[in-house]
Amino acid sequence: MTELSYNSVTSITLAELEEMLGSDAVTVDKEQLDKYGQDETEDLCYHPEVVVKPYNVEQVSELMKYCHHHRIPVTTRGAGTGLSGGALPIKGGVLLSMEKFNRILDIDTRNLQGTVEPGVINYIFQEEVKKHGLFYPPDPASWGSCSLGGNIAHSSGGPKAVKYGTTRDYVLNLEVVLANGEIIWTGADTLKYSTGYNLTHLFVGSEGTLGVVTKIVFKLIPLPKHDLLMLVPFHSAEKACEAVGAVFKAGITPSAMEFMERDAIAWSIKYAGEVNFTIKPEWEALLLVEVDGNNMDVLYADCEVISNVMQQHECDEILFADTADQKAALWKIRRKVGEAVKSNSVYKEEDTVVKRAELPKLLRGVKEIGKKYGFNSVCYGHAGDGNLHVNIIKGNMSDNDWNMKLPKGITEIFQLCKELGGTISGEHGIGLVQKKYMPIVFPKHQLDLMKNIKKVFDPHMILNPGKIFE
Amino acid sequence: MTELSYNSVTSITLAELEEMLGSDAVTVDKEQLDKYGQDETEDLCYHPEVVVKPYNVEQVSELMKYCHHHRIPVTTRGAGTGLSGGALPIKGGVLLSMEKFNRILDIDTRNLQGTVEPGVINYIFQEEVKKHGLFYPPDPASWGSCSLGGNIAHSSGGPKAVKYGTTRDYVLNLEVVLANGEIIWTGADTLKYSTGYNLTHLFVGSEGTLGVVTKIVFKLIPLPKHDLLMLVPFHSAEKACEAVGAVFKAGITPSAMEFMERDAIAWSIKYAGEVNFTIKPEWEALLLVEVDGNNMDVLYADCEVISNVMQQHECDEILFADTADQKAALWKIRRKVGEAVKSNSVYKEEDTVVKRAELPKLLRGVKEIGKKYGFNSVCYGHAGDGNLHVNIIKGNMSDNDWNMKLPKGITEIFQLCKELGGTISGEHGIGLVQKKYMPIVFPKHQLDLMKNIKKVFDPHMILNPGKIFE
Repeated sequence: MTELSYNSVTSITLAELEEMLGSDAVTVDKEQLDKYGQDETEDLCYHPEVVVKPYNVEQVSELMKYCHHHRIPVTTRGAGTGLSGGALPIKGGVLLSMEKFNRILDIDTRNLQGTVEPGVINYIFQEEVKKHGLFYPPDPASWGSCSLGGNIAHSSGGPKAVKYGTTRDYVLNLEVVLANGEIIWTGADTLKYSTGYNLTHLFVGSEGTLGVVTKIVFKLIPLPKHDLLMLVPFHSAEKACEAVGAVFKAGITPSAMEFMERDAIAWSIKYAGEVNFTIKPEWEALLLVEVDGNNMDVLYADCEVISNVMQQHECDEILFADTADQKAALWKIRRKVGEAVKSNSVYKEEDTVVKRAELPKLLRGVKEIGKKYGFNSVCYGHAGDGNLHVNIIKGNMSDNDWNMKLPKGITEIFQLCKELGGTISGEHGIGLVQKKYMPIVFPKHQLDLMKNIKKVFDPHMILNPGKIFE
Repeated sequence: MTELSYNSVTSITLAELEEMLGSDAVTVDKEQLDKYGQDETEDLCYHPEVVVKPYNVEQVSELMKYCHHHRIPVTTRGAGTGLSGGALPIKGGVLLSMEKFNRILDIDTRNLQGTVEPGVINYIFQEEVKKHGLFYPPDPASWGSCSLGGNIAHSSGGPKAVKYGTTRDYVLNLEVVLANGEIIWTGADTLKYSTGYNLTHLFVGSEGTLGVVTKIVFKLIPLPKHDLLMLVPFHSAEKACEAVGAVFKAGITPSAMEFMERDAIAWSIKYAGEVNFTIKPEWEALLLVEVDGNNMDVLYADCEVISNVMQQHECDEILFADTADQKAALWKIRRKVGEAVKSNSVYKEEDTVVKRAELPKLLRGVKEIGKKYGFNSVCYGHAGDGNLHVNIIKGNMSDNDWNMKLPKGITEIFQLCKELGGTISGEHGIGLVQKKYMPIVFPKHQLDLMKNIKKVFDPHMILNPGKIFE
């Protein structure tokens, strides 16, 4: 493929965008370019040439027609909480912020569906559907600040995914503006669908490279009435990982099955403050396990089965969270782990995923590869899904080693993932920072297939350029 | 698009195919061409020029390279139980039967996964995983004879889909031979996946037009220990449909929620024989409702809630199936409905799907449209999913009316589906017989997108030509 050339945003462009969207929806203010040049990926920053904030689908359509015609890159951004650099406008151009698409349009209690705009924050949607006795399960750690559109870009998961699936499993239909400004609905508002190629599922996980999502129809489910939460300490991290698979084998599907190395939880407690919980020095890892449902007797019975499995894997004394406050405190620790670990040092986060039962092998491999290349890592994540977030800590590593040795270490970690039936991202996406590793999991002809799908949707390659593929 | 030209199968082709696959894997026997020229779609028959039965992925790869090079159409066939003509070789060429891909390769009880070849029969796989205490839920009415590869082609559902989802929800990874003979794995064997465009989900439901599936990794779940089944008669079919939505609103998700008009069940009882069950003349429709889980007390409580909802919708006396034999008898009636209805008359079956709560409107609309155009219909299907199979019965309708008026009636039914948030196929696919109705639900530019995706995968358009699109 020859290098594509894009046009710059000129003063004429700015005037035309202001004419199109209104002057308050267009900004080149330095502070704004700074803010929208970053997401939550390491300390990366790429300035866009202009930030636009339209508020309806017609405006997005006009914008895309214009940029398609003028070959101007467009990078769509939800709430900017991504961890793979997916929202970074690395080719400059237009940063299309969807923050004004923030309305919950309908909660349909007859059909158990919700229709929203993509800028709605995950947690706000969750709370709204709860008022109707309904449940939208996908709950990334960043749920308090991430947008539903961003969740669709990566098919985001979260702790509940182990029982309830990821964002993909709740998307019924999408209104999308294509690169050339055309507007489509990808499917139908139905629970079943066998009507041509499934464009809905193609858009989910496509990281803003195929179109701009402007409306979402989600499937909702009845809200479970009760849950129980337990924290299980282990002297051996590998034993903890082995216990994970054994729980499922015992016929229980918990609503969360989270793994944390001791450093992760220790740093999080320090970072989150206010939590009264002491970590014993002999603990190497902890599991946070939740069950949910409508019948307390069943949940207690499930917890007994789980406790037995944990004891068979040599856990220490299990802590049951009895009150809403205790549950909230434990969940707060888990949700803050990412921020806490990252506040300690320069870092790189990998979103490894393998077959669930291969988790002990993955953990052991990560530590061995770390030793070989001289880096430490703190691991935590959604053990029930085989999805381990590996946070590689720079600490005292020299800049030279960090830049030269680390990519080799990461390559080996990803090769190991592939050997264990897995891949290089479970829920964070490829975006900018993982794209160079794609050839580890895909042969060239398969990457070419994906690139050619991209060209079908976006022949001038203006949508989120430089992402997913080299 | 200009009309594509294909090459015919010559005696040289046959010799080369025999050389490639072995002579016992290649046949032009008239009886075989007859058999493989039909599926379960009405009485349609299109002869292939040759039938081939390879038994490994290398052979399929060789075959595709050859046909790609020589521009010979290839129509892949599972067990030939499709209802939209998807497996009919309408352009002649090679009929690629996957019947020798019939091995269950692995049941992985540590990871709750199963790896199979696509020719394995659905029911055989279900029974095999049960032996390990596991569950593969998708269960089309034809489960005793349909293949898992065919199920992937249409993302087939079945009664259990209402609680457990369709085939799509259980496919983790696919080995696929592309049109040019290249072999890929579409994803990873993981529960979560955010690594580039999701090719797995693109292949599911693509009806053999994008590649040939040669291996499947399925997700499995723990087998529920118990179930309860009830048959609920209604004087009013619309009341029955209304009761469906009300059950879900009451917070219960049954493991089946099947709707049958009285004619459907009456014909099925007559057809299936041996079932001792009397239908009262005043019944207009029946619901077959199943709940499943691990705790009998919970199931009894669920049944009580369901019974109350049904009574609020003026049902007649509810029949509970107490024994395994009674349950089997009721399920047999339901599973035989399709065959029974079709054995009565020339027919056309539509696989309508709408938002669940719109089912009463759909049913009323189908009957009104039938009156307008002079046809009778027998309706049944997966009411919990809003998926109603409309069997239009020719009966005494003249050939002229059947050929001229019926397409107008079907068009109106599909337009109504779209108005009710639905689409033209929930689980049977588009194949041959529904493709002319695709413009009802998609604008031209969206159909063009799909066609261009097709071209990315199959530039010479040799795979299952003439399907999905006009």
